[in-house]
Amino acid sequence: MKSTHSPGGILERLNAGEVVVGDGGFVFALEKRGYVKAGPWTPEATITHPEAVRQLHREFLRAGANVMQAFTFYASDDKLVNRGQTMKYTGVQVNEAACDLAREVANEGDALMAGGVCQTPSYLSCKSENEVKYFEHVEEAEWAVQVLKTSGKPVAASLAIGPEGDLHGVSVGECAIRLVKAGAQIVGVNCHFDPQTCVETVKLMKAAVEKAGLKAHYMVQPLAYHTPDCNCQGFIDLPEFPFALEPRILTRWDMHKYARDAYNAGIRYIGGCCGYEPYHIRAVAEELKAERGFLPEASEKHGSWGAGLEMHTKPWVRARARREYWENILPASGRPKCASLSTPEGWGVTKGSTELLQHKESTTTQEMQRVLELQKKAKSTA
Amino acid sequence: MKSTHSPGGILERLNAGEVVVGDGGFVFALEKRGYVKAGPWTPEATITHPEAVRQLHREFLRAGANVMQAFTFYASDDKLVNRGQTMKYTGVQVNEAACDLAREVANEGDALMAGGVCQTPSYLSCKSENEVKYFEHVEEAEWAVQVLKTSGKPVAASLAIGPEGDLHGVSVGECAIRLVKAGAQIVGVNCHFDPQTCVETVKLMKAAVEKAGLKAHYMVQPLAYHTPDCNCQGFIDLPEFPFALEPRILTRWDMHKYARDAYNAGIRYIGGCCGYEPYHIRAVAEELKAERGFLPEASEKHGSWGAGLEMHTKPWVRARARREYWENILPASGRPKCASLSTPEGWGVTKGSTELLQHKESTTTQEMQRVLELQKKAKSTA
Amino acid sequence: MKSTHSPGGILERLNAGEVVVGDGGFVFALEKRGYVKAGPWTPEATITHPEAVRQLHREFLRAGANVMQAFTFYASDDKLVNRGQTMKYTGVQVNEAACDLAREVANEGDALMAGGVCQTPSYLSCKSENEVKYFEHVEEAEWAVQVLKTSGKPVAASLAIGPEGDLHGVSVGECAIRLVKAGAQIVGVNCHFDPQTCVETVKLMKAAVEKAGLKAHYMVQPLAYHTPDCNCQGFIDLPEFPFALEPRILTRWDMHKYARDAYNAGIRYIGGCCGYEPYHIRAVAEELKAERGFLPEASEKHGSWGAGLEMHTKPWVRARARREYWENILPASGRPKCASLSTPEGWGVTKGSTELLQHKESTTTQEMQRVLELQKKAKSTA
Amino acid sequence: MKSTHSPGGILERLNAGEVVVGDGGFVFALEKRGYVKAGPWTPEATITHPEAVRQLHREFLRAGANVMQAFTFYASDDKLVNRGQTMKYTGVQVNEAACDLAREVANEGDALMAGGVCQTPSYLSCKSENEVKYFEHVEEAEWAVQVLKTSGKPVAASLAIGPEGDLHGVSVGECAIRLVKAGAQIVGVNCHFDPQTCVETVKLMKAAVEKAGLKAHYMVQPLAYHTPDCNCQGFIDLPEFPFALEPRILTRWDMHKYARDAYNAGIRYIGGCCGYEPYHIRAVAEELKAERGFLPEASEKHGSWGAGLEMHTKPWVRARARREYWENILPASGRPKCASLSTPEGWGVTKGSTELLQHKESTTTQEMQRVLELQKKAKSTA
Repeated sequence: MKSTHSPGGILERLNAGEVVVGDGGFVFALEKRGYVKAGPWTPEATITHPEAVRQLHREFLRAGANVMQAFTFYASDDKLVNRGQTMKYTGVQVNEAACDLAREVANEGDALMAGGVCQTPSYLSCKSENEVKYFEHVEEAEWAVQVLKTSGKPVAASLAIGPEGDLHGVSVGECAIRLVKAGAQIVGVNCHFDPQTCVETVKLMKAAVEKAGLKAHYMVQPLAYHTPDCNCQGFIDLPEFPFALEPRILTRWDMHKYARDAYNAGIRYIGGCCGYEPYHIRAVAEELKAERGFLPEASEKHGSWGAGLEMHTKPWVRARARREYWENILPASGRPKCASLSTPEGWGVTKGSTELLQHKESTTTQEMQRVLELQKKAKSTA
Repeated sequence: MKSTHSPGGILERLNAGEVVVGDGGFVFALEKRGYVKAGPWTPEATITHPEAVRQLHREFLRAGANVMQAFTFYASDDKLVNRGQTMKYTGVQVNEAACDLAREVANEGDALMAGGVCQTPSYLSCKSENEVKYFEHVEEAEWAVQVLKTSGKPVAASLAIGPEGDLHGVSVGECAIRLVKAGAQIVGVNCHFDPQTCVETVKLMKAAVEKAGLKAHYMVQPLAYHTPDCNCQGFIDLPEFPFALEPRILTRWDMHKYARDAYNAGIRYIGGCCGYEPYHIRAVAEELKAERGFLPEASEKHGSWGAGLEMHTKPWVRARARREYWENILPASGRPKCASLSTPEGWGVTKGSTELLQHKESTTTQEMQRVLELQKKAKSTA
Repeated sequence: MKSTHSPGGILERLNAGEVVVGDGGFVFALEKRGYVKAGPWTPEATITHPEAVRQLHREFLRAGANVMQAFTFYASDDKLVNRGQTMKYTGVQVNEAACDLAREVANEGDALMAGGVCQTPSYLSCKSENEVKYFEHVEEAEWAVQVLKTSGKPVAASLAIGPEGDLHGVSVGECAIRLVKAGAQIVGVNCHFDPQTCVETVKLMKAAVEKAGLKAHYMVQPLAYHTPDCNCQGFIDLPEFPFALEPRILTRWDMHKYARDAYNAGIRYIGGCCGYEPYHIRAVAEELKAERGFLPEASEKHGSWGAGLEMHTKPWVRARARREYWENILPASGRPKCASLSTPEGWGVTKGSTELLQHKESTTTQEMQRVLELQKKAKSTA
Repeated sequence: MKSTHSPGGILERLNAGEVVVGDGGFVFALEKRGYVKAGPWTPEATITHPEAVRQLHREFLRAGANVMQAFTFYASDDKLVNRGQTMKYTGVQVNEAACDLAREVANEGDALMAGGVCQTPSYLSCKSENEVKYFEHVEEAEWAVQVLKTSGKPVAASLAIGPEGDLHGVSVGECAIRLVKAGAQIVGVNCHFDPQTCVETVKLMKAAVEKAGLKAHYMVQPLAYHTPDCNCQGFIDLPEFPFALEPRILTRWDMHKYARDAYNAGIRYIGGCCGYEPYHIRAVAEELKAERGFLPEASEKHGSWGAGLEMHTKPWVRARARREYWENILPASGRPKCASLSTPEGWGVTKGSTELLQHKESTTTQEMQRVLELQKKAKSTA
């Protein structure tokens, strides 16, 4: 069950035609485990509870991930000021600890380690083999790629966008071309949308890059939530974000489909973002068993396509021990008073609106009152 | 944030009127993390990956659980033979390791430790303060309670039944009376049904016990899945069991409602079973903050009723930072091609049918064919 | 295609073991056609637009109905005052016209004619062969049956109740027994609930009547709307009543199942109420073709079980020309933002509350304000 | 309540800026009433049951329709041969009767009469003021418009297409331009898709026609079924077509929204097609009361926005007597085992495939077997 792959870094592996399986997002998984606070989403657990962070790294490694992304701040400087204010640690300390943990677990297997997203000085001190950045606006991403190129490491640039392009209206195809021209060797999307949407988006990127006569590798790290009802701003605008997304969680069988679709689309860095648990990554690895030539360690604890049910007492449960059953299941929600789709919010507020200015202070009762009035107004004119 | 409670064991706490918060089920949680195989569901991870089991114990402890249930075999002897055959460890070894881990983490906080369910000689060697047993048939449970009483420890007897009673048709009320008469100090239900159903079932138990002039404490440890469509055999007969239950997962807000309903019903041991993640237990603990007098440690990472969103950039997300929002949300499934409810299977096969005999051998292709034919026949006459 | 049945009235037919197919409700059908006003639901169209009433009678006759129920006032005296105040016609005039129309069309076929529900003097002047009354309280029904018995005609007593019994808590079984003892030869239920619920209710009636050593015939005239979410007060309390019930409308295939279930339950007067269109009654008649010995006239325009699609151009539509397809279809709603079930209203207001007093005056803005405040209060304490 | 409008024909009315309200489709409405057979859908009821056809015309007239479309054959010559073979009447006879009935009822009000779709010699003998044609391929439509222009009457050309264009891949915009250039004064779409889709499609038409510097009036006659899950071939490919579409039926409030959206899009001929009942057209007329200056006759039997409930006994039903309630209702389906959306069929079979050849003979058991095999194959490769 040992993995067999080309020696060297991520580009060598991708150039050799290998599939690289990514890990899942840490903030959502650790929030459920009690170590990250939804809202600020800051990663101080790397210092306060390294055993929890390490354990999650190990689970993704066991599940088949080839890359351990450090659980660093995804936040910009101003966020650090706002959100870090109650922390006893500096961003530098937190990120260094994150890099150490990712490195440590990566070394336990033969995984690569990747620096995550941060815009603090500590960032460059992260001894990662490659860098991954996430942005909603291509311009910001472009600039970051140019800076990162100076490090000499491979640069992967990932945008949190859907098929409609970035928040400034730049098309997906143009985004990809600009990132490649800026020097990114790997381009793709992550977060904000479900696997189906993300794979479609990367397909548009690939088509545009190839049409422009350029070359790149492609990565995809979608949500583990079904989001067919999202508008261009992604799952944050869904009414369920972030505390009632449970009914949208993908099954492992949805993940099989995702992995196959991504592979068929020519994407070779296939991972996950918010909502992924280790068993989701294992499903990706199991789907790509033939292409990778091995199963992940955690598959010792998983019968392929439900085979673990073969000896169940009840015959109707035994009858589920086969691919055809799970591949076609349409699971019920158990929630007959809930609908299938939501209406995303948004209020038509655009960039620059005072309503969108970030706060340093806590929201007052008065302010909440104002927000609710705005909301009522927005809905009545919708 | 330190808990304050009566010294002594579980009965002292319950007698003092305290709420005891239980933990969640380990097999489903560890299956998702890659350490337990669905189907056999055996707990050898206590030996092979103690760090993973310990971490889960710690997360439930942080989330507010007062009891660490050892991750022992839930299985009967014949299951051990069947399912343990590929293991290198004996049931005794596995269970001792389970008890050690639960004891270790319980000592990190001020939690109690409970022996889980097993019917091997090792069972009695478990140095737990109290014993919990789970059964589908009251007769079996009754006998077990009588044996356990000889240990001198508190005995909690929990049945995996719904409001319709046990699989032999004994009513819920009579089940409870028989268990109390047999010596159980705590009676209740666990697994197989959702919180709403389980609380209703324990209410029936309590009413019957009180009407019979008896006294007991009550416990409830339901699934974290919505199962309004279950028949009397519970979630195993749902088509989604066990690999496509995601859309049914309760939100933390569903857990608030559950905790309040259970408390209002007079239940004082309130925990969880399959499907629970640490944040579910934290929600139970947060709902019962006033009654218990403290918040759990993990609430440092959780703003009450969404308060962590108060400083979000988008005003419509800030507008979610309030109880009224989350208390009333009806979350969408994101799955417009899936229904709300399923039809449980069952085929009308009853106890004693050869179809229900347990196998020691793997299911053959020929046997699967026969099972599928049975299924087709069952559905056509439904 | 001519019907063959025992000569004589409804009792002779039922005594001879025949199935009597009823018609559907007129107020809902004529409301959709523009001749009845939802709210007052008064039947003055019998005078103002007899062609529309006659046409609907004819369609039900063509569809296989054996009984034409006169479209008389279903209302009590006080309702007449309230609702008739804008009419130019008296209740007597309206009801006489209704009886004439039903008689006229019944004579076109070999159908029976039945007086509907009214409590005005005109009622008894209706030359119908049998009387049908509908009530929510058994006591009122009982008294009415006693009065009607003096007419010497067959009396059918139908209650608008579900399995939980009447609004005073009298059980379904006792309701039936009291009606039979009062002299009703046919007892059953109509309106307020869906076919499945109504058939279950009549089953309870039949079991109780037989257990009491009495004899009766049974009738059922349910809604053509799925109402699994109703409480004991029926579909009026559903938020969709009466203007957004469309997604709940039964298909013709649902009607086949209903007719078979009703027949198997020993019910021999099988008809419909609100929501029924002629094709629903035709489906009942088609399901009972073998038992009745003939198909209705309108089946000339209907291929059994979708046979009319046999020559469709598209092969996948041709593939629908078979019973197995339609019998098992689970039709989508096309409404991904709508749930499957609603929460019935009710506010816990009980009989005698001033809030339930009927108005003669129009609702004022002030009064609506008060109602909305009551509603808000009711929901917050729910 | 008399309508006030410009004298003259449809073009005069549209040129004067008036809104013209269309009627609804006859085949579906009369199928439910028992006079049309689903599958062949032939209109011989104009001869065999003129009272039923006349009554439906009258109901649409009362509901506010300005145009009575004759219930003629929509079918081409070969369909006549196939489908008419069991009829005792010629296509000419049937269509003449259809024209007479439409003319007769149009004269009862001040409505216009329109010849429907037919390609038989009888067509031109129909003394209608204007002609409406329906096609799936723009080329066919174009040719027909050119022929019809020779009659000197106004020509309205309506395509049964969605936003993706005709079945040959011609874009919606180009379709519209070609029809206008061929001489159609009114262009639009009908059937196959729901109101939202149809209005979007006509918007595309209008934008293209205007961009091309041309002028036209616009018409829309959508389904009364929600069809968000349709592919480009429309509702025929939905698994529910044509016998299980009930849950998709639009409410009257959906119709208000449709009428407003269509009006806002600049469409002035606003009507309906399959699934429309008279109350749907009334809702269109009520929404456009201000623009048209009057309410239809049938509104005597309809309180605006639920006002008929103002005097209901139950206060929670009175609380529904207001626009805000119905405008925002999301009606439940009452079908918890049904999904929201379906997967359209299609099998990838394209024009020219032998599978799509039309049959003159009935489908044999053997042929059905072959179709089901094709279906299985199509689904397994989907």
